Amino acid sequence: MTGKILIVDDVATNRIVLKTRISAALHEVSLAVDGQSALDMVRQDRPDAILLDLHLPDIPGLEVLARLRADPASRDIPVIVHSAAATPDQRLAALRAGADDVLPKPADDRLLLARLRALLRRHDPEAREALALDGLEDAGAPFDWPGLVTLTAMDEDAARRLDRRLAPHLSHRLVLRDRETLLGAETGRGAQGPGTPDGFVIDGATDPANALVLLSELRSDSLSRHSGIAVLIGDPRLAAFAYDLGADEAIPPDTPPAETAARIDALVRRARAATQRRAALHDHARLALTDPLTGLSNRRHALRRLGELSARSVSTGQGLTVLLADLDRFKRVNDSYGHAAGDAVLAEVAARLRAEMSAGDLLARIGGEEFLIVLSAPLAEGEARARRLCAAVGDSPVPLPDGRTISVTLSVGLSYAPPGSLPDTVIAQADHALLGAKTLGRNRVKVG
Amino acid sequence: MTGKILIVDDVATNRIVLKTRISAALHEVSLAVDGQSALDMVRQDRPDAILLDLHLPDIPGLEVLARLRADPASRDIPVIVHSAAATPDQRLAALRAGADDVLPKPADDRLLLARLRALLRRHDPEAREALALDGLEDAGAPFDWPGLVTLTAMDEDAARRLDRRLAPHLSHRLVLRDRETLLGAETGRGAQGPGTPDGFVIDGATDPANALVLLSELRSDSLSRHSGIAVLIGDPRLAAFAYDLGADEAIPPDTPPAETAARIDALVRRARAATQRRAALHDHARLALTDPLTGLSNRRHALRRLGELSARSVSTGQGLTVLLADLDRFKRVNDSYGHAAGDAVLAEVAARLRAEMSAGDLLARIGGEEFLIVLSAPLAEGEARARRLCAAVGDSPVPLPDGRTISVTLSVGLSYAPPGSLPDTVIAQADHALLGAKTLGRNRVKVG
Repeated sequence: MTGKILIVDDVATNRIVLKTRISAALHEVSLAVDGQSALDMVRQDRPDAILLDLHLPDIPGLEVLARLRADPASRDIPVIVHSAAATPDQRLAALRAGADDVLPKPADDRLLLARLRALLRRHDPEAREALALDGLEDAGAPFDWPGLVTLTAMDEDAARRLDRRLAPHLSHRLVLRDRETLLGAETGRGAQGPGTPDGFVIDGATDPANALVLLSELRSDSLSRHSGIAVLIGDPRLAAFAYDLGADEAIPPDTPPAETAARIDALVRRARAATQRRAALHDHARLALTDPLTGLSNRRHALRRLGELSARSVSTGQGLTVLLADLDRFKRVNDSYGHAAGDAVLAEVAARLRAEMSAGDLLARIGGEEFLIVLSAPLAEGEARARRLCAAVGDSPVPLPDGRTISVTLSVGLSYAPPGSLPDTVIAQADHALLGAKTLGRNRVKVG
Repeated sequence: MTGKILIVDDVATNRIVLKTRISAALHEVSLAVDGQSALDMVRQDRPDAILLDLHLPDIPGLEVLARLRADPASRDIPVIVHSAAATPDQRLAALRAGADDVLPKPADDRLLLARLRALLRRHDPEAREALALDGLEDAGAPFDWPGLVTLTAMDEDAARRLDRRLAPHLSHRLVLRDRETLLGAETGRGAQGPGTPDGFVIDGATDPANALVLLSELRSDSLSRHSGIAVLIGDPRLAAFAYDLGADEAIPPDTPPAETAARIDALVRRARAATQRRAALHDHARLALTDPLTGLSNRRHALRRLGELSARSVSTGQGLTVLLADLDRFKRVNDSYGHAAGDAVLAEVAARLRAEMSAGDLLARIGGEEFLIVLSAPLAEGEARARRLCAAVGDSPVPLPDGRTISVTLSVGLSYAPPGSLPDTVIAQADHALLGAKTLGRNRVKVG
């Protein structure tokens, strides 16, 4: 399914021409003849993008745009302002009011369609939906603190000239970077540290082919994959290409510096909002899976994973060894040393257990002082590893926050699950074995 | 930062030539002279991609590949097999053993670099890290149930011929779709229903330019944005373009059908795994924010959101109305009708409250029978809306699972927070007002 596009224009021939061109790309097109009906249709029908004329019979186009942007329900819908004769000031006003682009009327066909594709691609309803509850969608917060934007031209003099023209208009610090430095080892690998640019501008005026290669390189680089990237490029056909290669903005080189700067500012703002959304998504995902004190998997997650591992053991034919491990007499730690000490012990024990794990093992905190460990290993190996876990916990005392130390020990109940075992049965067996280990005097491994 | 690429080749001149070409794209290159040192270097250094020769002095290249794929730590690292004279069977064996591509040696420069970019782009360490705990990374589950793959050629006869050649080799059902049907309204909007293809093949043999446009269109379409897309295209320069435009596979049209089918199978498998990862990420994010019984925001999330809304009120100058709403005598429902009835009442009340909300309002369940509502509205409007909430809950009885009905009422404490108020203060005021509403006889709104 391609997009639902709303065309707002009071001139019938304009609407028909645009509709024909946009329908050719198999988008679903709806039409509005004035500002009020546009606002009504947006509310009812939530289009994926809007093409908005500035000259409407009832409400001025800029006012329609401002109302769309003020309403959380339409704040994120991409809007392209198309205007037969917008002055530089009108173009700037539209961009500042939240237009995603201002295109002349008639716009180059390929460019218009590629621009629409880029806007539709940026709009990711799936991720937005997952975070809708988070309210990040309607935060509309201004992410306008001064950042760092790099400017790369294919020759140095051009870069300097451009820098002098743009810098006075930009909210961000503009620094010149050649391709080598940009893609090279300057910033720490993967670390989005203070040296990481907030946006990238590639000057493709003199050498568009190499500018497009650099664009592709930045898009595959882990550091700039999700960054805002603008390409200065004149030829509409190449600008269309730039959009399909992942540019956020393709700006003609003869654009007034104030407008270019406004577009770059918007680019940084959007990329920052998207970064924030992505970070929230990842944080929440981690949160839902983790025990906050130890950073280990939590109970819910561990039981689900055990179910998956059991199911998989049927196809691999390899059984699992399941361990339930419990700190001995842990209540005494809390009672004698306080809860802060208890928490410190749990965190340290978790760290020692984790250090004993290999890739593919499952380690989780499933109760107050109880841990579940699942190893893709046969029984004898599982038993040996369980003894190592006891040693790792019991062999050296645990330091407390107040500087004292305390010795703790671990009891482990162990159960081997042949392929196809039911998780509940295996856990019950391990639990029974754990009880045996406790009864036999603690600090030991018992096989169930 | 571009990628860390490991080149494995026993011939010194080959290593040097490749290193020069790949370093020109500013990747960081390391070299291994045989299979064992390659395996050691992968373990120590975790490269982002590997270029692997099949003919190595110690361990056969295919065996090195199999070991990389068997180890969870290296299972997802992209591997390009490069071979001077691989037979069709060797190529097929490499792909089946988990190679991401098999390129001739020497490979076209532009194609090799674009292929590397595409592989590096697909590899998203950020998202993987968020899910590392989830074990989805080491699941290695076979996602090989038969799916639906569409085939689009620029002319119908070519499509039929290709279909006849490919279908016998493919694990999936291959259906012909012209561009109009593919992008059109055939499948339900946004619904990834049973009609949604698992993969897309575009035949670009006769009309590569339009094939590349269709590729860009599919990449901006919400239904196919994350799908696996293969383009059949011969010219290495255009194949390089296809990768930069987002193709997962660019396959020369003269490739034997068995190999083409193996590549398409791999494409579907990877896209399914990525879809599963994305769904898990979104599920977890939702889980961390939601109260499972009512689907409303949970307490932790609501308090964070209130903090954000308060902070924002400073810049907007618009105050908030904060409501604490509590079901009256809810304990009696649980005691007299059982917990299942109590849960049904909470779910129904939540649904009625939600029906009264507008975009931008916050509604959360923050305790057993207690709800927090934040409205971007002045006091008088907030008070009117609070009365509507009481009516929505109290005016009609709630049906219970056993067929009986029960009447419940709501008490609301309300507090107006001028811009810049501290969330804790506002909640304390609303809580105080709620106590007043309870004391005054319940089923009412009290302003604090």
